[in-house]
Amino acid sequence: MNRKMQWLRNQLLSLDLQGMIVSNPVNIRYLTNIRAEGTLLVTRKENIFITDGRYIEDVHNTLTLFDEIVVYDARGLSQDDYENFFMFCENVGFEENYVTYAKYKEYMHRYKINNLVETENMLEKQRMIKDEDEIENIKKACEITDKCFEYIVNYIKPGMTEKQIAREIDDYYYKYAEGTSFDTIVASGENSSKPHAIPTNRKIQNVDIITIDMGCKVNGYCSDMTRTFFVGKVPEYVKPVYELVLKNQEQVLNDLRENSNTKQIAKMVDNDFRLHNYDLIHALGHGVGLDIHEAPVLGVYSENTLKENMVVTNEPGIYIAGQFGVRIEDTVLINKGSCEALTKSPKKYIIIK
Amino acid sequence: MNRKMQWLRNQLLSLDLQGMIVSNPVNIRYLTNIRAEGTLLVTRKENIFITDGRYIEDVHNTLTLFDEIVVYDARGLSQDDYENFFMFCENVGFEENYVTYAKYKEYMHRYKINNLVETENMLEKQRMIKDEDEIENIKKACEITDKCFEYIVNYIKPGMTEKQIAREIDDYYYKYAEGTSFDTIVASGENSSKPHAIPTNRKIQNVDIITIDMGCKVNGYCSDMTRTFFVGKVPEYVKPVYELVLKNQEQVLNDLRENSNTKQIAKMVDNDFRLHNYDLIHALGHGVGLDIHEAPVLGVYSENTLKENMVVTNEPGIYIAGQFGVRIEDTVLINKGSCEALTKSPKKYIIIK
Repeated sequence: MNRKMQWLRNQLLSLDLQGMIVSNPVNIRYLTNIRAEGTLLVTRKENIFITDGRYIEDVHNTLTLFDEIVVYDARGLSQDDYENFFMFCENVGFEENYVTYAKYKEYMHRYKINNLVETENMLEKQRMIKDEDEIENIKKACEITDKCFEYIVNYIKPGMTEKQIAREIDDYYYKYAEGTSFDTIVASGENSSKPHAIPTNRKIQNVDIITIDMGCKVNGYCSDMTRTFFVGKVPEYVKPVYELVLKNQEQVLNDLRENSNTKQIAKMVDNDFRLHNYDLIHALGHGVGLDIHEAPVLGVYSENTLKENMVVTNEPGIYIAGQFGVRIEDTVLINKGSCEALTKSPKKYIIIK
Repeated sequence: MNRKMQWLRNQLLSLDLQGMIVSNPVNIRYLTNIRAEGTLLVTRKENIFITDGRYIEDVHNTLTLFDEIVVYDARGLSQDDYENFFMFCENVGFEENYVTYAKYKEYMHRYKINNLVETENMLEKQRMIKDEDEIENIKKACEITDKCFEYIVNYIKPGMTEKQIAREIDDYYYKYAEGTSFDTIVASGENSSKPHAIPTNRKIQNVDIITIDMGCKVNGYCSDMTRTFFVGKVPEYVKPVYELVLKNQEQVLNDLRENSNTKQIAKMVDNDFRLHNYDLIHALGHGVGLDIHEAPVLGVYSENTLKENMVVTNEPGIYIAGQFGVRIEDTVLINKGSCEALTKSPKKYIIIK
């Protein structure tokens, strides 16, 4: 059995759970490498993946004997089969943050389980700490993102639309990686005041401000980076905002390490912004892995302590509605006494001439 | 108030619900046009959208006074505010097929609701019947898909990879529509035996079989079309399978109309496939709208009766593991006495020379 499935079995044992239903496809991929719709059952005796005809061939190609996972086509399973899976199991875990209320009721009924037990993001918490392979994948995704950014800064010319630039980034990622890890944001001029702007047909002006939020995937693992940069020149009224964001982003890079308290760090940024009459309107950062947004959250509303080998973003931003916005973001690897920014693109004023 | 919100209020009244929490962003978009993370509350007195700082500006730009929707930033809301929203409400509806078990418990607690009531896909059922504007959008998406298919058939040459072809389709959709409605499938040779194949670096051969499953979005509304076609010539061993799939696809087009029983129709295809020792391993079709897969399902496991102005797919397929597959799919508008295929690309042997 692979290391991660073995870990899960040990966890269940320690929680007095006799089985678990894993429904979140990202968790299933994390545990088994399977990329298909279906449900993973960890029963007393077996690991079982229930899928359907569309995926059977693919799943068989992914798994090896070593995985010790039995694959069933849902069409071949009777009500009795379902009831047998967790026979004599008192407590069976499930993912209460993924499974819908309706599915929860269906599971109870279908598997005849008396006690479906919340597992409190057990898998998501484990996924926070990356192993060597996972870090390697994220590093590669970050390297490609740096190269893509260098490419795109040279590519952008006044007159191009945001959509066109976003498309060029997507093409780059499609060519050199597994595509984007989220919808690329290219927000120029007043659009940059929207943190989650969708690229429009707005044309880049001769003097302009551009925020690009971009990331790609390598073996399923994501990168995430944002830079705000300029065309022609840096308007004087933007400078204080840019420098305030940059100062805080760099301060956070200094502060992030094993045992950092994320709430404290986010609070410091928020306080500094408030001192200057701005607000930190979104979280300071988030975990990155198989999901582009995963645990932990780095924000003022939740208390988290960082651990070695977590990968998180550091992305303070200030947005002035209808005018402009500045966000600077790196993907960061947490080490024992410090952290390492895995995205390394320059942050001092980049000006496209 | 807009027509759809008014409809929802009437529904709630008839179900003796004094309010509803709408969480599914697709349902929120359907009802309000809002495209942002957040929660829509229908209370006794008001329509409320709770979002966060990232989206406030955008939501205000989307809504007009006519919408009668009050927008709140979640950061400004206290526990008291939340409890006031549904004060004196006995029964409040929620989307049990979207809301997670954990969220369900959170809603109960946050809004102090005694009775959260399952609404049995009320919104999804309403979304099945398209209005004029919705049909217009889907028609446009289908037209663009036909044009894209014509373009791509002329574009494909032996030596190109599946990925390259998929990318070309995506580029086309990005240029002429709002992008793809799902991950484009380009599956050639033995890969075509996987119904949900992911495009690979396999190169198109001089004699080859290619299945392309493609669709785009117009104003959020999807199209969906599949064709299996050939390079060089049609291998003799493929012909009986192709003709069996095509015969059934055309028969289904003859049978689909208001009051069709979808289970019966799927059963007929399944029976005909079985007569020839094949299987219908996936559903015969599904609804299409703001979601690429929505209600109703057309399959042998569920009973559905079609209604005028539903839009569904008709997509029989046969897959021979490790060898090849054939699928032919149209997006279809249901009329009173017949149906109309909105995707109109040719189905008789297409051969690229």
